[in-house]
Amino acid sequence: MDGTLGEAGEFGLIAELVKIFEGSVDGDEHVLVGPGDDAAVLRIKHGHVVVSTDLMVEGRHFRRDWASASDVGHRAAAQNLSDINAMGGTARHLTIGLAAPADLPVEWALDFARGFAEECKSVGATVVGGDITRADEIVIAVTVIGQCTQSPVLRSGAEAGDVLALVGRQGWAAGGLAVLGRGFRSPRALVEAYRRPEPPYAAGRQAAEAGATSLIDVSDGLLAEARHLAEASGVAIDVRRGAFEIPEPLTAVGAALGADPMQFILGGGDDHALLATFPDVASVPTGWQVVGEVLEGSGVTVDGLAYDGPTGWTHF
Amino acid sequence: MDGTLGEAGEFGLIAELVKIFEGSVDGDEHVLVGPGDDAAVLRIKHGHVVVSTDLMVEGRHFRRDWASASDVGHRAAAQNLSDINAMGGTARHLTIGLAAPADLPVEWALDFARGFAEECKSVGATVVGGDITRADEIVIAVTVIGQCTQSPVLRSGAEAGDVLALVGRQGWAAGGLAVLGRGFRSPRALVEAYRRPEPPYAAGRQAAEAGATSLIDVSDGLLAEARHLAEASGVAIDVRRGAFEIPEPLTAVGAALGADPMQFILGGGDDHALLATFPDVASVPTGWQVVGEVLEGSGVTVDGLAYDGPTGWTHF
Repeated sequence: MDGTLGEAGEFGLIAELVKIFEGSVDGDEHVLVGPGDDAAVLRIKHGHVVVSTDLMVEGRHFRRDWASASDVGHRAAAQNLSDINAMGGTARHLTIGLAAPADLPVEWALDFARGFAEECKSVGATVVGGDITRADEIVIAVTVIGQCTQSPVLRSGAEAGDVLALVGRQGWAAGGLAVLGRGFRSPRALVEAYRRPEPPYAAGRQAAEAGATSLIDVSDGLLAEARHLAEASGVAIDVRRGAFEIPEPLTAVGAALGADPMQFILGGGDDHALLATFPDVASVPTGWQVVGEVLEGSGVTVDGLAYDGPTGWTHF
Repeated sequence: MDGTLGEAGEFGLIAELVKIFEGSVDGDEHVLVGPGDDAAVLRIKHGHVVVSTDLMVEGRHFRRDWASASDVGHRAAAQNLSDINAMGGTARHLTIGLAAPADLPVEWALDFARGFAEECKSVGATVVGGDITRADEIVIAVTVIGQCTQSPVLRSGAEAGDVLALVGRQGWAAGGLAVLGRGFRSPRALVEAYRRPEPPYAAGRQAAEAGATSLIDVSDGLLAEARHLAEASGVAIDVRRGAFEIPEPLTAVGAALGADPMQFILGGGDDHALLATFPDVASVPTGWQVVGEVLEGSGVTVDGLAYDGPTGWTHF
């Protein structure tokens, strides 16, 4: 479909988007009514309903010259699917709101939608509704609805004596973002990690079943998320630098940019790794690595000391 | 809380918003985990889950000089609650995304949130999560989750021979918008109708129980919504001008602006009236008025003729 959103008009664009997302709900027996009516109707029979919502703004959370429309779609879906992962739940259905300028090429919107639907499909989730409207800049609003058949794992359950563990790539996306910010396109592995994060989607439920006492996804930065866990649980958390193996591409980027690669690991978000606490080392599931410990007190330290590097992302 | 969003910072603002919305979920036994974790956790045991999402953009869907922050909050909630109404469901939980410039006064955001929570409370619904981020203009993204204990009423069930019926104020908000657009602040009843619509929240379920064959809410314009019903159902719809009593303030505005007041009724949205089809006049519930009929064919006519006035709102 050629042209801009302004030329295609609201209803032309909606018709195309509904085609993409109808493909997404085909065969999903849990969707009684998909996109196209006033609301979608879902069948969620067992367990609890888990819901989360996130915004992405062009120029702030993504740039069209740094990632393809499809990449942005993958990333928008991934960061929301990850929130359900961080409760120990299973993502099931998503809605998507797209505010965009009238001069946005329709193909950008459709490629975005295709990437979004693909990422959802990779975890068996479907897109059941949405809204589009005109705005000066692109704002993407996603809501994800999931299901939790066991008790959800909150941020607030960590206790002194627990161990802190991580699963998934950490620091890769931040490294990719750093090189893009300097105008480079390599190391490719990092740039791709930024463009299309690969959250450890199965690990949230795995952690819940292994008895995790608290759980969060690393979207804003590892130390920032550790602080969320510490504050919600009323404990202190110490992170051990030595627990992290610095992957080769991050070493290379650190050398090229004159930065400590450990900064990407401790301060980086966007990979959507999971950070959890477990009662002891024995209960930490396969694939997770112990990266610190939970102590009495408050605040987050690194190797027992205050950390003065960047700890994460702030939105204002 | 004084100052701007930029001064308050993301976490300061979130803390204030969570206070407002925690008040909203207090005592809601269906909310197991409210705002503040990675996702909210809800208990929806019976029936189906109904979900809808909507965007509002400053300058396009609202103006800060035309309505208070609290009004905008009421309106943002109302238009979403209305979508659940339009399925014959009961709204239960909402999430809200707020993208806003750093120089937005914190008090605007908090008054908006208070108005939003109040409107939700008026139907027993609660705010369970959200996201905030910086953007050049204000974009409000709302998702509402409801429950349907009977079969949802879709847009697609109208059949030739059915009667078309409406419930709720219609044209008032469009009249209010028209006078605001000319720089006036009266008739006050119309301006207030635009600022705080009063959707007929109980009427969706009432229509479902009375055997409505199709149902939609009038957010984009009466004839535009009739067209949605006609297209989804594969029928024609004829609307009768004579069915509408023109309320006094609309007559006054029509005279003042040199416009046919019937245009506000046929083309206006934003009141969130409900439009439905029923098998016969006898099944139309109390409070609804018959405004037309369903015929074989396609398209929407007024008194049997094509209508050449504005039929509703377009987003691009």
